[in-house]
Amino acid sequence: MTTTQAIKLLDDFRRGKVGREKVLRAFQAAPLADLGFAQVDTHRGLRKGFPEVIYGEGKTPEHIAAIAKRILQTEDRLLITRVATAQAEAVRKAIRGAVYHEMARCVTIEKRPLRKRHGAIAVVCAGTSDLPVAEEAALTADIMGNKVSRIYDVGVSGLHRLLARLEDLLSAHVLVVVAGMEGALPSVVAGLVRRPVIAVPTSVGYGASFGGLAALLGMLNSCGTGVTVVNIDNGFGAGYAAGQINALATD
Amino acid sequence: MTTTQAIKLLDDFRRGKVGREKVLRAFQAAPLADLGFAQVDTHRGLRKGFPEVIYGEGKTPEHIAAIAKRILQTEDRLLITRVATAQAEAVRKAIRGAVYHEMARCVTIEKRPLRKRHGAIAVVCAGTSDLPVAEEAALTADIMGNKVSRIYDVGVSGLHRLLARLEDLLSAHVLVVVAGMEGALPSVVAGLVRRPVIAVPTSVGYGASFGGLAALLGMLNSCGTGVTVVNIDNGFGAGYAAGQINALATD
Amino acid sequence: MTTTQAIKLLDDFRRGKVGREKVLRAFQAAPLADLGFAQVDTHRGLRKGFPEVIYGEGKTPEHIAAIAKRILQTEDRLLITRVATAQAEAVRKAIRGAVYHEMARCVTIEKRPLRKRHGAIAVVCAGTSDLPVAEEAALTADIMGNKVSRIYDVGVSGLHRLLARLEDLLSAHVLVVVAGMEGALPSVVAGLVRRPVIAVPTSVGYGASFGGLAALLGMLNSCGTGVTVVNIDNGFGAGYAAGQINALATD
Amino acid sequence: MTTTQAIKLLDDFRRGKVGREKVLRAFQAAPLADLGFAQVDTHRGLRKGFPEVIYGEGKTPEHIAAIAKRILQTEDRLLITRVATAQAEAVRKAIRGAVYHEMARCVTIEKRPLRKRHGAIAVVCAGTSDLPVAEEAALTADIMGNKVSRIYDVGVSGLHRLLARLEDLLSAHVLVVVAGMEGALPSVVAGLVRRPVIAVPTSVGYGASFGGLAALLGMLNSCGTGVTVVNIDNGFGAGYAAGQINALATD
Amino acid sequence: MTTTQAIKLLDDFRRGKVGREKVLRAFQAAPLADLGFAQVDTHRGLRKGFPEVIYGEGKTPEHIAAIAKRILQTEDRLLITRVATAQAEAVRKAIRGAVYHEMARCVTIEKRPLRKRHGAIAVVCAGTSDLPVAEEAALTADIMGNKVSRIYDVGVSGLHRLLARLEDLLSAHVLVVVAGMEGALPSVVAGLVRRPVIAVPTSVGYGASFGGLAALLGMLNSCGTGVTVVNIDNGFGAGYAAGQINALATD
Amino acid sequence: MTTTQAIKLLDDFRRGKVGREKVLRAFQAAPLADLGFAQVDTHRGLRKGFPEVIYGEGKTPEHIAAIAKRILQTEDRLLITRVATAQAEAVRKAIRGAVYHEMARCVTIEKRPLRKRHGAIAVVCAGTSDLPVAEEAALTADIMGNKVSRIYDVGVSGLHRLLARLEDLLSAHVLVVVAGMEGALPSVVAGLVRRPVIAVPTSVGYGASFGGLAALLGMLNSCGTGVTVVNIDNGFGAGYAAGQINALATD
Amino acid sequence: MTTTQAIKLLDDFRRGKVGREKVLRAFQAAPLADLGFAQVDTHRGLRKGFPEVIYGEGKTPEHIAAIAKRILQTEDRLLITRVATAQAEAVRKAIRGAVYHEMARCVTIEKRPLRKRHGAIAVVCAGTSDLPVAEEAALTADIMGNKVSRIYDVGVSGLHRLLARLEDLLSAHVLVVVAGMEGALPSVVAGLVRRPVIAVPTSVGYGASFGGLAALLGMLNSCGTGVTVVNIDNGFGAGYAAGQINALATD
Amino acid sequence: MTTTQAIKLLDDFRRGKVGREKVLRAFQAAPLADLGFAQVDTHRGLRKGFPEVIYGEGKTPEHIAAIAKRILQTEDRLLITRVATAQAEAVRKAIRGAVYHEMARCVTIEKRPLRKRHGAIAVVCAGTSDLPVAEEAALTADIMGNKVSRIYDVGVSGLHRLLARLEDLLSAHVLVVVAGMEGALPSVVAGLVRRPVIAVPTSVGYGASFGGLAALLGMLNSCGTGVTVVNIDNGFGAGYAAGQINALATD
Repeated sequence: MTTTQAIKLLDDFRRGKVGREKVLRAFQAAPLADLGFAQVDTHRGLRKGFPEVIYGEGKTPEHIAAIAKRILQTEDRLLITRVATAQAEAVRKAIRGAVYHEMARCVTIEKRPLRKRHGAIAVVCAGTSDLPVAEEAALTADIMGNKVSRIYDVGVSGLHRLLARLEDLLSAHVLVVVAGMEGALPSVVAGLVRRPVIAVPTSVGYGASFGGLAALLGMLNSCGTGVTVVNIDNGFGAGYAAGQINALATD
Repeated sequence: MTTTQAIKLLDDFRRGKVGREKVLRAFQAAPLADLGFAQVDTHRGLRKGFPEVIYGEGKTPEHIAAIAKRILQTEDRLLITRVATAQAEAVRKAIRGAVYHEMARCVTIEKRPLRKRHGAIAVVCAGTSDLPVAEEAALTADIMGNKVSRIYDVGVSGLHRLLARLEDLLSAHVLVVVAGMEGALPSVVAGLVRRPVIAVPTSVGYGASFGGLAALLGMLNSCGTGVTVVNIDNGFGAGYAAGQINALATD
Repeated sequence: MTTTQAIKLLDDFRRGKVGREKVLRAFQAAPLADLGFAQVDTHRGLRKGFPEVIYGEGKTPEHIAAIAKRILQTEDRLLITRVATAQAEAVRKAIRGAVYHEMARCVTIEKRPLRKRHGAIAVVCAGTSDLPVAEEAALTADIMGNKVSRIYDVGVSGLHRLLARLEDLLSAHVLVVVAGMEGALPSVVAGLVRRPVIAVPTSVGYGASFGGLAALLGMLNSCGTGVTVVNIDNGFGAGYAAGQINALATD
Repeated sequence: MTTTQAIKLLDDFRRGKVGREKVLRAFQAAPLADLGFAQVDTHRGLRKGFPEVIYGEGKTPEHIAAIAKRILQTEDRLLITRVATAQAEAVRKAIRGAVYHEMARCVTIEKRPLRKRHGAIAVVCAGTSDLPVAEEAALTADIMGNKVSRIYDVGVSGLHRLLARLEDLLSAHVLVVVAGMEGALPSVVAGLVRRPVIAVPTSVGYGASFGGLAALLGMLNSCGTGVTVVNIDNGFGAGYAAGQINALATD
Repeated sequence: MTTTQAIKLLDDFRRGKVGREKVLRAFQAAPLADLGFAQVDTHRGLRKGFPEVIYGEGKTPEHIAAIAKRILQTEDRLLITRVATAQAEAVRKAIRGAVYHEMARCVTIEKRPLRKRHGAIAVVCAGTSDLPVAEEAALTADIMGNKVSRIYDVGVSGLHRLLARLEDLLSAHVLVVVAGMEGALPSVVAGLVRRPVIAVPTSVGYGASFGGLAALLGMLNSCGTGVTVVNIDNGFGAGYAAGQINALATD
Repeated sequence: MTTTQAIKLLDDFRRGKVGREKVLRAFQAAPLADLGFAQVDTHRGLRKGFPEVIYGEGKTPEHIAAIAKRILQTEDRLLITRVATAQAEAVRKAIRGAVYHEMARCVTIEKRPLRKRHGAIAVVCAGTSDLPVAEEAALTADIMGNKVSRIYDVGVSGLHRLLARLEDLLSAHVLVVVAGMEGALPSVVAGLVRRPVIAVPTSVGYGASFGGLAALLGMLNSCGTGVTVVNIDNGFGAGYAAGQINALATD
Repeated sequence: MTTTQAIKLLDDFRRGKVGREKVLRAFQAAPLADLGFAQVDTHRGLRKGFPEVIYGEGKTPEHIAAIAKRILQTEDRLLITRVATAQAEAVRKAIRGAVYHEMARCVTIEKRPLRKRHGAIAVVCAGTSDLPVAEEAALTADIMGNKVSRIYDVGVSGLHRLLARLEDLLSAHVLVVVAGMEGALPSVVAGLVRRPVIAVPTSVGYGASFGGLAALLGMLNSCGTGVTVVNIDNGFGAGYAAGQINALATD
Repeated sequence: MTTTQAIKLLDDFRRGKVGREKVLRAFQAAPLADLGFAQVDTHRGLRKGFPEVIYGEGKTPEHIAAIAKRILQTEDRLLITRVATAQAEAVRKAIRGAVYHEMARCVTIEKRPLRKRHGAIAVVCAGTSDLPVAEEAALTADIMGNKVSRIYDVGVSGLHRLLARLEDLLSAHVLVVVAGMEGALPSVVAGLVRRPVIAVPTSVGYGASFGGLAALLGMLNSCGTGVTVVNIDNGFGAGYAAGQINALATD
């Protein structure tokens, strides 16, 4: 029940068009209606730049296409994550304007791209194996209307590569730092910048990396202040939070 | 080496006042000098409102007092975390103006408080046992110049308590959500708001909480978008990151 | 040895038809016979609505069909869980009346369905990926003679979806709540209802979900009173326990 | 906002005593009011026999006494769990009629005991070291108005002790089974009875029991159907769930 | 260097046939020679009934056949474990007399079977899924010259099945007890018998069985005295240790 | 119910002294009676040399003394494990003839010592910190009537110490091998002997020993055939199993 | 910027050929330039015998070949690790002189082999399943210009095999010791030699080896002094560190 | 048996002074004698600069003093690690010349200090809380005759502190790098130097550091080549290995 509908109901009640019981029942159902209002608010939020997101893994191409089409009835942009190459082909056939980003394993559809906010989100990654996760973060931030500064392959075993991009690091509004293995990069980056750092552990590694656990624990124990962490390989979550933060900075 | 010093050196070299070797050596030492510049930048950052922080655990009161005094020579405010009651008494005696916040286990010294930024940081916690961690976060955000909106004891087993504070949740710039046991609160909060949520797992619980591991894993796997996580019981880290984010919003 | 057989043996002994040794031996074998009696009791129990269950995973279709046929000689209904599509086809060909429930990965055979008990078992799940586990629980409860109220896709990141079904939640005799990732849903549901909640963690998730461990720990540490937990992905076990509880309520 | 208040508001509105804006705002606040209604329902639930419970660990005796007194203003009974001997003494002095149960580490206050439901809850435990947890479960069930059948020290390494109590096991409405070390007892019990079994792992053991983890995993993997599990050492939770189940059977 | 060779060397030295240096060097090499003596002892041990064993997993059929043939030059029997069906076919073709035991996943070759020792080794298992591990144990014990009493599918959820075989349990010299899931069977068996029980956890289970960890921890924490444990799925190790124990009893 | 009692009951029934109902009931109680017979068998077993054992940890001296005295009414020997020095003093005062073994943390009472079986049990340990566990094993084996050969402080980092005791190792009937840290000693010993090796991990170590987990995993994965393992620090369990094995060899 | 370039720049500046701004900018870029100098140093290091290494896993043959060719423009040797057979074939076709070492899963290219340093690196392994990891270590050490002494299949369950190679062990400058399962070999070897031992746990094993965790923990807790450890299956890392150590001994 | 003794025995045998049996037996005991020879070699090793080390934890001051005195009969220097302040006082009283190093928690006795080898061992640590472990490493290296270059409090969150000591890092023969929390420092250091890096994780941290596990895993997964790792808090082990490596470089 929207505010408009509520006003009409009350006016009808005052005019005697509807009984007290009916008004009472309508408002007793309010928790839903009120939170439905929150849902409407979410829609407004989406209109302001946050596309609803489909998690592709384990869904059939038909399933993905159906959900995507329904969302696109009311939305101007859409992000689908964790899409394998085979799925992507089917989705691209089903939805006009769908673009597959192979490295990021994402499909995007943008009826009209958002104007980019000033102030960049830096996406930093340690090694080339971390690229799919970094690109998922970058693409998420991008489609939410942010400029993305990609600073890739700058792992801590060769500091000069990282320091060579110091200016880009310092000028970013918020930094997403992606690393596998020992996951040390966010600590080093957080020591260099004064903006929020979102650390993303990846499952890159073998043996005692235990599927990303080593990097995850490293990042949670970071000696760098201002580091927060998301789930292993969760590039989307980091890009999304970075987008929320940058929105706060610029909206 | 500052830029001014560098210019003087080069001019002296051109005038023959210093030899090539000396110039060469000075610039070969540059990495330190350049990052010393970064260090200066850090100082500037601190002057803009981020007090340097002392981690009190395992330090003697004398040790804490000595470090504190040195920092206060150049800084207007200071935060000391993880200070037990006994330590606090000694620190309070040693440093004029030191205030002990028992629940937060913190000591603060503020020569002149920062003017608060507009836009609040909400600190939300699930139960009364989570209060020390929540207060550490709140105090950290406060001394960094932020208004703090405390929303305490609103765990998910009684949703109405949380929803009663919905307006405060929705109006916050950034939310720190603290919970032990199953750590479900950040997911619920992130489902209600569109601002960044920083989740803090606490070691509150017993048995299969494994010292906060259950809450930590729960938060890392949150189905709510925009949730990032810090270490178990790390109220300071969450408050600090929230302060960084709010600074971005308002500076 | 049934009670009837025991009485006959004793009468025969008194009449001199059998010797003391034989009686003695029969009763010395009693632990088995007595527990065989318990086995008979189990059969009676099954006749009252609890079908014996075959765990299909790792069994050949022939193996499943053979066991199923033997059980159906004495039983009116049968549940086979964890049946892949390929297995199911073979089982359906081998057993007349076998129905395959693809989402639940179960085969059921009911010669004559049980009359449903009054009082529903609610099966609640957080996301669409949890459906196979939820359906396994629902089907188990159903074949045991219970009405099942399905409340699906009501995860905690959008509370209004859950609250919209509040009446169904409140009217259930017992609730099975299925969730992966952070597994927060049972805590929230247990805060809303006064009936027993059986929580089922699922292996849905990635990274630090560690195959369902995060959800499992979350549920074990639930702040909601009256929550008990079963193994990861164990929809059958939850449905069965719910059936036992509802039987207690209504038999 | 209660239904009565809502009716009055609407009538006032129709009579022109209050404006549309005020009615609208009152109902927009409805989520709280509606869930406040649920809160009232909780109170009703408590009046029907479920005492609100205080978790004593980490609280001062004064704190406990204060909360207890407030609850007892509206309630006829109260349970306080995890109370150490020293705490208990202070609580007993502060609250007239408080009884300390040393083995269960609980304090109870009952202005007038509930009439016991017919149908017993069996509390079964493996060894004498499990007694505190078993007693916490038993006391919880008892104060909720249930007859409790204690079957103690019947661990699986001496089956005859367990089988000697077979009749008590079979006649219980619901069984709480408490065990540390390998936690095998619930599986054996569940193989003997057709009623719900709630398994409680305890931290009894050493070495590879890892604080109760071995027993917890054992119980989660129980081959016995109808076994659900609570947190390590959570006697209260098991007793509470058992009480909920028995209430369903008898109310 | 055998004792005979050592005596000859010393005599040659006394007779002046070899120099002091040579004798010294030979004995300085003694650690090998002496432990080579231990190696000979091992051979003697093998001749007394302990066949050397090939672990088949990860070896090519050619590799297995080559090793097998070399061992069979000096041995009368051979056990090859963890042999997949495809491997087995190739091995059977390459080695005359090779027998493949599909359930046990083992190949055996016996030129002349050992006479069985009096006194049986009982191999007990909980469920049908544990059969491959149980059969590996049984086959190992068998080829080492032991009578094996198979007591299968007697899990603790139906005690009567186990008690029906009580006589077999009691008469065994040593018992190998195999179980997955919660691994409770060894505790129950050890409570019934006075002979050594070797517990074998299996990886049978799902979810929180964590690949057999639950069963392993359960067995290590067994309340039954006299229970020792081997690695998960290590039927061979248990059968071998049982054979060593029975050899002690009867040789 | 003993066999004698059963015969009398049947004769009384045939003579009409007791009714059919009474006989039926007596035999229906048979599972207990029959397993009570097993209990008697346990007693007989104890009379043959296996003293019942009290686990002292967490028990008051009075509690220990009371249990001890009751056991000593029917037994000639008694072992109490995990007894701290303070407890031991009280127990020694309460029970005449009680001897405290400080290193083993055990109390023993022997009215008349058992004659030792021929054939020794070797108790081997790696370092001096492992002595309490080793002595618990040795004392357990000793009081069960076995000669014990102590081979202490022979860790694998100095093989010559171990090899110096090779003869003792080779002549033992069964070996208990105790080690903390990496727990490598059982593998080395099992490579030298053909008798059963029972490995006991200890909690000796720090850091990544994780309370004995490293040693435990090492022993479970031993490449030495014939190694079985008990719980961390479980000297008693190892000594007991060794005693069972040696009894088999010599009784 | 190399030293030569820097000197030229300064001379040009003194001669007025370049302005102060340009010099300043060049040196302000110094962090990179200076660390680029370190990079040059690395190159020099490589020319002295440390080939840059490509980690082949997850890279396409084309990708590997492209990187390899670029490195070989300036380097005389190259090591590519973790190359599967199929990849290797493609790499061999693309790069003249590439040699595939199947057991080590490595490709090497050496334009002109380094002269071997005096003083050998011993690579020791426990079982034949550890060979791929051992060979990776050996090949790494070899291509870095070291003599490698292979001491294979000398696990601790047969000490005589190890002691037979005592002379080779004692004469090595540094030892790489590779073992799976319980990982005991490094402790035994470190007890025999006075040179550094680098331990490499392998994922060889099953069940409670948990993918090499058991061996890893064992090695970290080694009672042998002078043992350091690398990641599970990290033969390359161990060979590389051994090469660094031997370089120190001989350069 | 030394070589001299062996020669004498053989000569006596040739001269008929001793019988063949006696010679044979002496050499059959050779494994011990030969490894006793190795023991002698160890002594020689010790005389060349490696003092035998006493692990003080859990030992009484008397125990420590007694062992220390015996070692000092034949040795010129002694290191005792993990000595608490109270122990140290007693040891200092008992042994003349004993020096207590409080930060390192070590006692040293040096009759005459070794001449330091040229070439330093750098001991690097991340924070002040890591000092005890770093000092243990430094002291161990020092007493083994090495110059130690202490580079403390140079954690990765402030790179300029580390880079300010670049020259010291680059000139070290071998580096011990100590860090708690995320343990990132060794990776950064290994990226800067070409010498071996021994990483020491410390238990410094809280929450998800899990007693040093986070740092340990981080170091094992280091992307820096040439990093090897020791146990958590094992400063001694790292200092010892560093000493072995430097000895190789300079002896």
